[in-house]
Amino acid sequence: MQRIKCIFSYDGSGFSGSQVQPNKRTVQSEFQAVLTKMHKGKTVQLYSSGRTDSGVHAKGQVAHFDTDLTMPVVNWQKALNAQLPDDIYVHDVALVPADFHAQFDAIEKEYRYFVNNQEARDVFRRKYSYHYPFDLDRDKIKAACRLFEGTHDFTTFCSAKSTVKGSKVRTLYEVDLDVLDDELVFILRGDGFLYNMVRIIVGVLLDVGSGRTTEADILEMFAQKDRTFAGKTVPAEGLFLWQVKYEES
Amino acid sequence: MQRIKCIFSYDGSGFSGSQVQPNKRTVQSEFQAVLTKMHKGKTVQLYSSGRTDSGVHAKGQVAHFDTDLTMPVVNWQKALNAQLPDDIYVHDVALVPADFHAQFDAIEKEYRYFVNNQEARDVFRRKYSYHYPFDLDRDKIKAACRLFEGTHDFTTFCSAKSTVKGSKVRTLYEVDLDVLDDELVFILRGDGFLYNMVRIIVGVLLDVGSGRTTEADILEMFAQKDRTFAGKTVPAEGLFLWQVKYEES
Repeated sequence: MQRIKCIFSYDGSGFSGSQVQPNKRTVQSEFQAVLTKMHKGKTVQLYSSGRTDSGVHAKGQVAHFDTDLTMPVVNWQKALNAQLPDDIYVHDVALVPADFHAQFDAIEKEYRYFVNNQEARDVFRRKYSYHYPFDLDRDKIKAACRLFEGTHDFTTFCSAKSTVKGSKVRTLYEVDLDVLDDELVFILRGDGFLYNMVRIIVGVLLDVGSGRTTEADILEMFAQKDRTFAGKTVPAEGLFLWQVKYEES
Repeated sequence: MQRIKCIFSYDGSGFSGSQVQPNKRTVQSEFQAVLTKMHKGKTVQLYSSGRTDSGVHAKGQVAHFDTDLTMPVVNWQKALNAQLPDDIYVHDVALVPADFHAQFDAIEKEYRYFVNNQEARDVFRRKYSYHYPFDLDRDKIKAACRLFEGTHDFTTFCSAKSTVKGSKVRTLYEVDLDVLDDELVFILRGDGFLYNMVRIIVGVLLDVGSGRTTEADILEMFAQKDRTFAGKTVPAEGLFLWQVKYEES
């Protein structure tokens, strides 16, 4: 038995999220269907670094699975891409130790959130960025990004539907805004993210840019530890799981 | 009665082309449905600069229609965009003379054709560029572009299904290749284009880049005046009607 690690991208707009759900087209079910076919009908389970919601994209999702096929590892990428649908693409495949786990061994994740900040809708970007046609003070947003960096209890910035039982303390290594003309790119890197955490933080940062929320408000939000104190969750289409990092092995 | 000119973009991937066809979702039928609703059920015909095929996009399509609504012209853009589906967007609306015609008055059209020239598929660009993962001599392509510029009989570079009865002589003002890393952008500007002409010319230019076709072959293709002498038609997804020009009025 060999354990295989894959890095892959998917266009989330055609999926009901990443995880298997009955009667829904999901990334995991499409991927597992290919693996199962390659293993002559034997079910092969795919373990990813974490779920993504319906409409959320991945540029560098990571997953692992076990196989008893004796194919050389270099052939896996071609074999998978030949059978996967055109909205999933495997960028890299590697053999990993039998105790590697794509979810539990991840030490850092990076998400990016794209905002189309111009008046005109862009029909070609509508599934890949959030159209926010209002004026934003970009310097105020950049300054407020700093407040989210470091180790904090992110209870306020996590969906009330979160099923996390343990601590909601997470460490964000980077929260930043890149501006390319009218495209805003929020970059968030951290040791872990709670349910909807990126989409709630970006919502608050847009509120800062539009003047609805101040830095003092954000400090108060952290102190309250209550989801109702932060603004709305921005839509799924702007969100990309960008990359997942592991200890060098 | 007022004649209105619109400049609009659409994502062609959700349409069976631009022109009305029975029981198909087309750009014209979606647009006319909105116009008809605004005119309380009276059918309003939309005349565009020309048709685009299924899967072909438009960044700057132009069309006109007649209206007896007395709405100020500045309000039209908002009114249309509020009702059009999210894969069509009107960028500009202007009042034009009653004898303006979006098709017959066009003096120049520009098309762009996008090629993803890297080994990896790009799931996010799959509907907006042609994935061509093979090596290309880009300098050879640039040199061969010159052969298509100027006034020529383009019979060889036009679908055999073309219904044009008159001359197949057209003038191309510019045929060029822009390279942005692994993205190739073919730019073609001319006084008119025959059916599938851009997609056939780009196919020949890719054949030049891969070494299958020489400049001498292209001269021979022109001389033969026979579609079967040119290579295959490249797919619709890479093609954008970029802009349409009219005499300044």
